[in-house]
Amino acid sequence: MTRGRFITLEGGEGAGKSTQAARLVEALERQGRRVIRTREPGGSKGAEDIRGLVVRGDAERWSARTEALLMFAARSDHLERTIRPALERGEWVICDRFADSSRVYQGVAGGLDPDFIEALDEAVVGPDQPDLTLIFDLPVETGLARAGTRAGDEDRFEGKGAAFHARLAEGFRDLPRRFPGRCVLIDASGDPDAVSARVMAAVEARLG
Amino acid sequence: MTRGRFITLEGGEGAGKSTQAARLVEALERQGRRVIRTREPGGSKGAEDIRGLVVRGDAERWSARTEALLMFAARSDHLERTIRPALERGEWVICDRFADSSRVYQGVAGGLDPDFIEALDEAVVGPDQPDLTLIFDLPVETGLARAGTRAGDEDRFEGKGAAFHARLAEGFRDLPRRFPGRCVLIDASGDPDAVSARVMAAVEARLG
Ligand SMILES: Nc1ncnc2c1ncn2[C@@H]1O[C@H](COP(=O)(O)OP(=O)(O)O)[C@@H](O)[C@H]1O
Ligand SMILES: Nc1ncnc2c1ncn2[C@@H]1O[C@H](COP(=O)(O)OP(=O)(O)O)[C@@H](O)[C@H]1O
Ligand SMILES: [Mg+2]
Ligand SMILES: [Mg+2]
Repeated sequence: MTRGRFITLEGGEGAGKSTQAARLVEALERQGRRVIRTREPGGSKGAEDIRGLVVRGDAERWSARTEALLMFAARSDHLERTIRPALERGEWVICDRFADSSRVYQGVAGGLDPDFIEALDEAVVGPDQPDLTLIFDLPVETGLARAGTRAGDEDRFEGKGAAFHARLAEGFRDLPRRFPGRCVLIDASGDPDAVSARVMAAVEARLG
Repeated sequence: MTRGRFITLEGGEGAGKSTQAARLVEALERQGRRVIRTREPGGSKGAEDIRGLVVRGDAERWSARTEALLMFAARSDHLERTIRPALERGEWVICDRFADSSRVYQGVAGGLDPDFIEALDEAVVGPDQPDLTLIFDLPVETGLARAGTRAGDEDRFEGKGAAFHARLAEGFRDLPRRFPGRCVLIDASGDPDAVSARVMAAVEARLG
């Protein structure tokens, strides 16, 4: 049994990750692949319970250190109970946010020591790094304006202020330099069809 | 302002930690000290929210790795928002369970790599190690029989089976060898007054 491929989508609020994750799954299924779509924080029963603590409430509810530990706790459960079993069954896993969001939200923008985040990644993700990471790049204001139209109370990170979101955008844009083997920047401007075309081109180029 | 002292109480289920923590606080207050009593997992608003995920539900709800990350997330919040501020105000902190419970529950009994736990401890607790750790030593069956009389639904760890609890007892008994500078074994058998006398003798001997 060939192991599946693991693709993650990253970027700031409202960049179009969830929209494009759904479209990518459909496109891969049309190619005849077995695919699961999942997300972080969350993606397994326990990790969704942890998500409830992280995405709601006051922006200052958790320090960057506590938040990173909660995110990697959720990631640990998600890997053990959803991602690794699917990859082992030969399925492709399309994941809406993953460890790079910890690097950028808690590390670059939150000020947490990057070595601590890499130590957590080594212990929790280990060899199961994504095969491809698509980073959705969009001006911060455009993304926040898009995100503001979504319903629901999962708005804790949106409340963190303009300077925080500017650092996020820089942090995401810097990932292809830090992890050139797997990270590709995707221009997330324009309509969803235009973005989908760029996504499919990147997936074809990197994973054939 | 003299920094306060930090005392932790450790041991298996039903060993008498919570009973003795309350008595120790009263005894120290009678000596005129300013003292706070706190507990883990929990001890701050956020950490109590995390506690809710950890102490309830099925025994296999979390892997040892996920559980350690959740415990250190709670510990991080507890240190930042309760323990360090109290110590800096000059108060003594009496804490019912702390990092040694992670070493023993997730490490010794749960099979998690001890180096990973020490790395978490270094990043989260760092220099704020307890000044004194009292380890309540009691035959497993006696402790579980005592614990079984408590009310409530926080019984996830009690459900983990006899072999797990035997490894816990061994793990706790081994702590004074691993951390001789701060760990003291307390004979937890006999009535609460007898145990309190042993506790006070240890506190006098170690912290004067
Ligand atoms: N290319 C696009 N152009 C305009 N609006 C978009 C585009 N992609 C997504 N949206 C809308 O913007 C909002 C945020 O998109 P979403 O996919 O939820 O972003 P993210 O998951 O990155 O936060 C949603 O309401 C979505 O319908
Ligand atoms: N020395 C003792 N002898 C008999 N029962 C005790 C003693 N100390 C505590 N208990 C009772 O045993 C139960 C467990 O004690 P507790 O302090 O909650 O233990 P722990 O916090 O270590 O789990 C409680 O019902 C408590 O009243
Ligand atoms: Mg989304
Ligand atoms: Mg107790």
